[in-house]
Amino acid sequence: MRNMNPTIEWFDDLKLGMRFASDKLTVTKEDILRFAAEFDPQPFHTDEVAAKSTILNGLAASGWHTAAIAMRLAITARPFGPHPLLGAGVDDLRWMKPVRPGDTLHLEGEVVELIPSRTKPQGIARIKWTAYNQSGEAVYTFNPIAIVPSRPA
Amino acid sequence: MRNMNPTIEWFDDLKLGMRFASDKLTVTKEDILRFAAEFDPQPFHTDEVAAKSTILNGLAASGWHTAAIAMRLAITARPFGPHPLLGAGVDDLRWMKPVRPGDTLHLEGEVVELIPSRTKPQGIARIKWTAYNQSGEAVYTFNPIAIVPSRPA
Repeated sequence: MRNMNPTIEWFDDLKLGMRFASDKLTVTKEDILRFAAEFDPQPFHTDEVAAKSTILNGLAASGWHTAAIAMRLAITARPFGPHPLLGAGVDDLRWMKPVRPGDTLHLEGEVVELIPSRTKPQGIARIKWTAYNQSGEAVYTFNPIAIVPSRPA
Repeated sequence: MRNMNPTIEWFDDLKLGMRFASDKLTVTKEDILRFAAEFDPQPFHTDEVAAKSTILNGLAASGWHTAAIAMRLAITARPFGPHPLLGAGVDDLRWMKPVRPGDTLHLEGEVVELIPSRTKPQGIARIKWTAYNQSGEAVYTFNPIAIVPSRPA
């Protein structure tokens, strides 16, 4: 899918409805435990046995781990060509399904809003990204506020 | 500040305007580089020299690293007492200032919305969290959708 991504150089090249797909990444049990130990030390993320009797019914990645993986994947989609992915914030961040050890995730994104700046040679590009697991289930979505330079006059 | 946090056992104990503060955490350059290498490999997060000529004017933590640190800090505030911090999503996530090597962050939170469930013994608690650096500058804010059990009848 990645080869089908549009080639973008500047804000002006983005169009509403344009779609991007990322590479894939498999999340291991070790990844989940290591991230959780550092950032989200709660039993459903840190302890395979204790996790079974929690609301998540087994070990699952911290939602912030999933969010970090999604950042990594979004970079591979190169939605802004040579320009960085740097955001002022994120709206509509939702975790829909647990991410389990061994899950393979990829991201799909769609351009949902484009707001040219009136004062600067740039625009705000909104891409709604959704992460899917290997079963095609949507596990996570987020809509960052990205600033992308415009084509020089 | 942590000792001044209200003691919460159940959803029913939370009140609008209640405030929580977290422990502190210092972010090292090594932390920033390690997180970025794994999740957000862009020059302003991975390369101290190259970062100087980017829009961030020097090395800064990935926004998702800041978000992960904030999760860690929120746990220390124990806003839901013995219950986990587990969210369906987040609204109003914004990065206001770069987080630099050596910065010491802490979180402050305020209960801004409480929605008891009509069908289940639980409620949705909205806490607006803001992360501050050692200079008292707000660097990051987020408002998770947290589900907290109600006191048994």
